[in-house]
Amino acid sequence: MTASVTRTAEELRGLAVAALSATGVPPRQAAWTADILVEGDLMGLGTHGVLRLVSYCERLRLGGIKAAAGIAVEPKAPSLALVDGDNGLGPAVAMTALEAGFEMAGATGIAYLGCRNSNHLGALAPYGLKACEKGFVLICGTNASTTIAPWGGREARLGNNPLAIAAPVLTSAGPGSTGPDGPHFLLDMAMSVAARGKIRKAQSEGTAIPEGWAVDAAGKPTTDPAAALAGFLLPFGGHKGSGLSQAVDMLSGVLAGARFLTDISPWTDFPERPCGTGHFLLLIDPQRLLGAEAYAAAVTRFRDLVQGTPPADAAAPVQLPGQREQERRAAALRDGIAIPQDLLKKIEALAAQ
Amino acid sequence: MTASVTRTAEELRGLAVAALSATGVPPRQAAWTADILVEGDLMGLGTHGVLRLVSYCERLRLGGIKAAAGIAVEPKAPSLALVDGDNGLGPAVAMTALEAGFEMAGATGIAYLGCRNSNHLGALAPYGLKACEKGFVLICGTNASTTIAPWGGREARLGNNPLAIAAPVLTSAGPGSTGPDGPHFLLDMAMSVAARGKIRKAQSEGTAIPEGWAVDAAGKPTTDPAAALAGFLLPFGGHKGSGLSQAVDMLSGVLAGARFLTDISPWTDFPERPCGTGHFLLLIDPQRLLGAEAYAAAVTRFRDLVQGTPPADAAAPVQLPGQREQERRAAALRDGIAIPQDLLKKIEALAAQ
Repeated sequence: MTASVTRTAEELRGLAVAALSATGVPPRQAAWTADILVEGDLMGLGTHGVLRLVSYCERLRLGGIKAAAGIAVEPKAPSLALVDGDNGLGPAVAMTALEAGFEMAGATGIAYLGCRNSNHLGALAPYGLKACEKGFVLICGTNASTTIAPWGGREARLGNNPLAIAAPVLTSAGPGSTGPDGPHFLLDMAMSVAARGKIRKAQSEGTAIPEGWAVDAAGKPTTDPAAALAGFLLPFGGHKGSGLSQAVDMLSGVLAGARFLTDISPWTDFPERPCGTGHFLLLIDPQRLLGAEAYAAAVTRFRDLVQGTPPADAAAPVQLPGQREQERRAAALRDGIAIPQDLLKKIEALAAQ
Repeated sequence: MTASVTRTAEELRGLAVAALSATGVPPRQAAWTADILVEGDLMGLGTHGVLRLVSYCERLRLGGIKAAAGIAVEPKAPSLALVDGDNGLGPAVAMTALEAGFEMAGATGIAYLGCRNSNHLGALAPYGLKACEKGFVLICGTNASTTIAPWGGREARLGNNPLAIAAPVLTSAGPGSTGPDGPHFLLDMAMSVAARGKIRKAQSEGTAIPEGWAVDAAGKPTTDPAAALAGFLLPFGGHKGSGLSQAVDMLSGVLAGARFLTDISPWTDFPERPCGTGHFLLLIDPQRLLGAEAYAAAVTRFRDLVQGTPPADAAAPVQLPGQREQERRAAALRDGIAIPQDLLKKIEALAAQ
């Protein structure tokens, strides 16, 4: 374990922009990417935070990600668009789509945007939070290189494709207003029982993993992290998680005209190759459907009913999905972000190039 | 166990229409409802088939469901509408929404429809199949009366809200065409580890249920079906299924202006009261996004990659979600639907009234 140091979000964003700019990424794309990664750190999602700059910058230098990508929005109908990422940084591609989506859904009340030729886009929760702050419901997802076997299979043909569903908790407009907006409803979940990172951690610590997390290369259950990493992850809920992961790939890959399933190039094995990752973003304006007051009243009641559930453990109140991440974010904005010292050194070195 | 008899889909639809008409349901709503329930039986989803006529007709007679409901579509934007079910039969409300959705998404490429003042709508898979047959992707869901505790809670405040994601497998238009359309991608899943019906079955058979299915009224794990029925179901994947169920309620209940969470009246306890159930249907035209040939080629490749996964059990090839249901449907259309004799008698009695 390395010591942690604390930096403000602004300091980390500055370092991230400098690191990306050093590889030739234009300012707006660098700023978007820095923002999404730092948002990950703010929410306590360190595996999807500035840590990713190391692989992003490596791939930018190798040409696996295109630094000066010409990301293009292709409207297909007033509420439908495809976004060609031109093999640019995933957060820049997804933020291009999100901003186009704000405009489209602002005009028509709804928008679907499918992104192709993209790469790793960070965590989904930051996009959900941005949509909520603009008053939009967001359903979004991404595909990823294969780590999961479709249910009943013994070969990884499916990514751990996360899905996010976010809805703004607007209290200020409601007749039963009880305070400022948020925390928003912010579900962000991947499809495996446990993340691959947790198995890598067990391997580095020399401990076994629980049963049910993974199977070995022959498809047999294992508690050995090395065998699990050579095998594949198990989807949560068995056939349900497997089916949902396929559905996310259908919406992110097939519908977006992107690569999908085994066609996505794994950046860990081939950092110099484009991944061809696909994402989707689907925005709905709830106030357009219901009116501002009726929506605020309904969503506030929804939040209150969930949070008011008698807890199994009196010391642990029931939370809205994403509430913890938003509380961590508020604390980190106030107190700064703790970041491992050796990671900070790596990023400072990238920024100084 | 009662003996089974075999009837054609047409015969069952005729009986269902007669049973519903006898309570005053107008022809089109009766036909829609009969169709959706018989589709459930065709797909082997007997818990969501004509069995439901018994409770539907009871509630129609008690006034819990309104027989002559004035179901109304309220457009909010070219791709957005709300549907007021006027406390009518769920399948009639949802089919009104689906048909309006075909028209809207046919014009604009996308449509979101939120239904309120509705009731139990049968299984979701039949709606998904209808959308696929028209060439649309469908994401749909419904809320339901409470059977699940939000994660960390010890009170059922959440329904077992199913979610369906369907995408048409169009092979005939594709350059790599390998045969007729389908089976389509047809994911339909509820959020509990096991259905309540399975626990009722264990109770009636005097057997224990597996650990992990349910907890008792105090929130403690139980294998006693009676204690489980007095307690609540566990969501699949723990906090993930709990969060996803809430997200489905957000899209089906809050966004549709419908009731949600504990506000939904349980039809089992109060058959004479309106449930206030909400549903959502979200349609996307994939051919509008990609063109017919590119979509057909991509979705066919997706299917082939999933089905071609080396199976864990050589005798059980990997299937697309919903493939088994569509194969059962083809067999039942050919050979007829097996239905328990005592259930058939009940339905014949309802039809003869």
